[in-house]
Amino acid sequence: MHALRESCLNLRGPARAAGQQIADREATLTKPAGSLGRLEELTRWMGEWQNRVMPSLERIQVIVFAGNHGVVAQGVSPWPSDVTAQMVANFEHGGAAINQLARIGGARLDVICLEKLRSTRDFTQGAAMDEAGFLSAVNAGYVSVSPDTDLLCPGEMGIGNTTTASTLSAALFGGQGSDWAGRGTGLDDAGVTRKAHVIDLALSFHGESLRDPLEASRRVGGFELAAIMGAVLAARHHGIPVLLDGFVCTAAAAPLFALSLDGLDHTRLSHRSAEAAHMRLAGLLELDPLLNMALRLGEASGGALAIPLLKAALACHEGMATFADAAISQADSDAT
Amino acid sequence: MHALRESCLNLRGPARAAGQQIADREATLTKPAGSLGRLEELTRWMGEWQNRVMPSLERIQVIVFAGNHGVVAQGVSPWPSDVTAQMVANFEHGGAAINQLARIGGARLDVICLEKLRSTRDFTQGAAMDEAGFLSAVNAGYVSVSPDTDLLCPGEMGIGNTTTASTLSAALFGGQGSDWAGRGTGLDDAGVTRKAHVIDLALSFHGESLRDPLEASRRVGGFELAAIMGAVLAARHHGIPVLLDGFVCTAAAAPLFALSLDGLDHTRLSHRSAEAAHMRLAGLLELDPLLNMALRLGEASGGALAIPLLKAALACHEGMATFADAAISQADSDAT
Repeated sequence: MHALRESCLNLRGPARAAGQQIADREATLTKPAGSLGRLEELTRWMGEWQNRVMPSLERIQVIVFAGNHGVVAQGVSPWPSDVTAQMVANFEHGGAAINQLARIGGARLDVICLEKLRSTRDFTQGAAMDEAGFLSAVNAGYVSVSPDTDLLCPGEMGIGNTTTASTLSAALFGGQGSDWAGRGTGLDDAGVTRKAHVIDLALSFHGESLRDPLEASRRVGGFELAAIMGAVLAARHHGIPVLLDGFVCTAAAAPLFALSLDGLDHTRLSHRSAEAAHMRLAGLLELDPLLNMALRLGEASGGALAIPLLKAALACHEGMATFADAAISQADSDAT
Repeated sequence: MHALRESCLNLRGPARAAGQQIADREATLTKPAGSLGRLEELTRWMGEWQNRVMPSLERIQVIVFAGNHGVVAQGVSPWPSDVTAQMVANFEHGGAAINQLARIGGARLDVICLEKLRSTRDFTQGAAMDEAGFLSAVNAGYVSVSPDTDLLCPGEMGIGNTTTASTLSAALFGGQGSDWAGRGTGLDDAGVTRKAHVIDLALSFHGESLRDPLEASRRVGGFELAAIMGAVLAARHHGIPVLLDGFVCTAAAAPLFALSLDGLDHTRLSHRSAEAAHMRLAGLLELDPLLNMALRLGEASGGALAIPLLKAALACHEGMATFADAAISQADSDAT
């Protein structure tokens, strides 16, 4: 764990000089200053992390990490764990939502199964992963990111993993089960109550051990969540901006923030999930979602859906004429 | 005006049978029910207006309507009216934001100059347009829509036209200048105060004549706003869903709602503009924006930016496997 901790703390910052050059060019383009709103900020963000004055979106990698969860034994999902492997097969045959969304976004889709989809241990009764298993999953995520990628959209598939994400969020940021338990893929009220209780059992079992973010990720996380953390860390080291997906993906990356307040500065939150805890978590992480389409699917679906916004931002920055090029009169700054 | 009024009231409704078939298929796709959120609603909306059980987005038309405004003489914009024609040239040379955004959205871009960019009359001193000029502009918008278009994204360019949109909104829905005046393309506080005063002058001048929505559009509207209304009406008659853009575009279409409460049912609001009055107007029109990117550019920029969301919705609906295809276990509806 020591090397991983060092890696999480040894983070490079944004290339402010590239960002300034981007802002300077933006001010010359044929539109009222600032009128492309958040698109302008997104271009600067991409450039600062890629360290390019003209950001690139040629190579976009969507990676779906799949894992299974021992806590499913506690009855926290209406779906059987078999569905994780069945959905992986669906990804491989092109039949899932993420296949379509990655295609629309012009992204490559990789699917990584963690631990051959063996389940973690039920974390109400022990640590979800031993140290070797946890580090192996983090590493699998880390090495799955191609260093020449221009944008990373991580996502997940894992029956039961909103319970895991809720427990990890509570471990990192406090609160109890009822603060973080939601409907997931379709629980009724009684199911949500049971889920909250299961989270409380886990918090009570692990106690003070959860104070360390990496230990929290190992004890009450999951293989695919650990892999997402590894992938987001790799992106930081390689200068790759990241679009986070929904609640599970955001919770998976959250230990990087808990370890270092700038640990997610190279990420943007693609969307606001319909899972209620997502906005609680996003607020704590100071992430403002780009989209609000009431998605609650995971699979990197929100991240992939937001790719065209970045392409649009970049296309404007790259393709627009300047006021000088187009011989357009400037605003009278004295006008009232 | 009589024929236009008849045309605005003679509206066909959505094809509910197609919508039901779309919802039935959606329920079979490999995802938890409803987990694609608003994307599912968008697919149904497209299908109901296109009257197709598999909606199409092959032919997308972005149309920017350009016009000038006599009210600019009142000092309501920091930009000179010449900029309208200069920006039209910029559109034609491919240098504006909308050129890039239409390309990313895979849309054809048409630019229509109204009345050779002669200004309307200053509506603080008379009707902006005489009846012939108004009807000609509405007709120009109507005929600019290709009947075989799958999706329409109307937009506008016209120095001074946020003042026009504000005045028209007040005429249709009440309130005074200060309720509707905003910064437009860059007014300071004193400018906004002046703009509010100009709106009040116009409301006072025209008085009760503004009670009729079409008269309001003629008296305190503009050529490009009239054309947008014509285009949105044509889309309704041809079964074409519409993505409205920002404040000016939304205000331009608003008389159709004022004439008939279902008059904008074939539209969705692409985005929430940074112009404050936009959300006031959207609320009155019962339109919920898809995006909130703080754009305030016009040109159909928000509409074009939202096109990939519709493509993504349709790609999922069309391309996803069903549970039966993919041999995936179903949720246990009895689970808690």
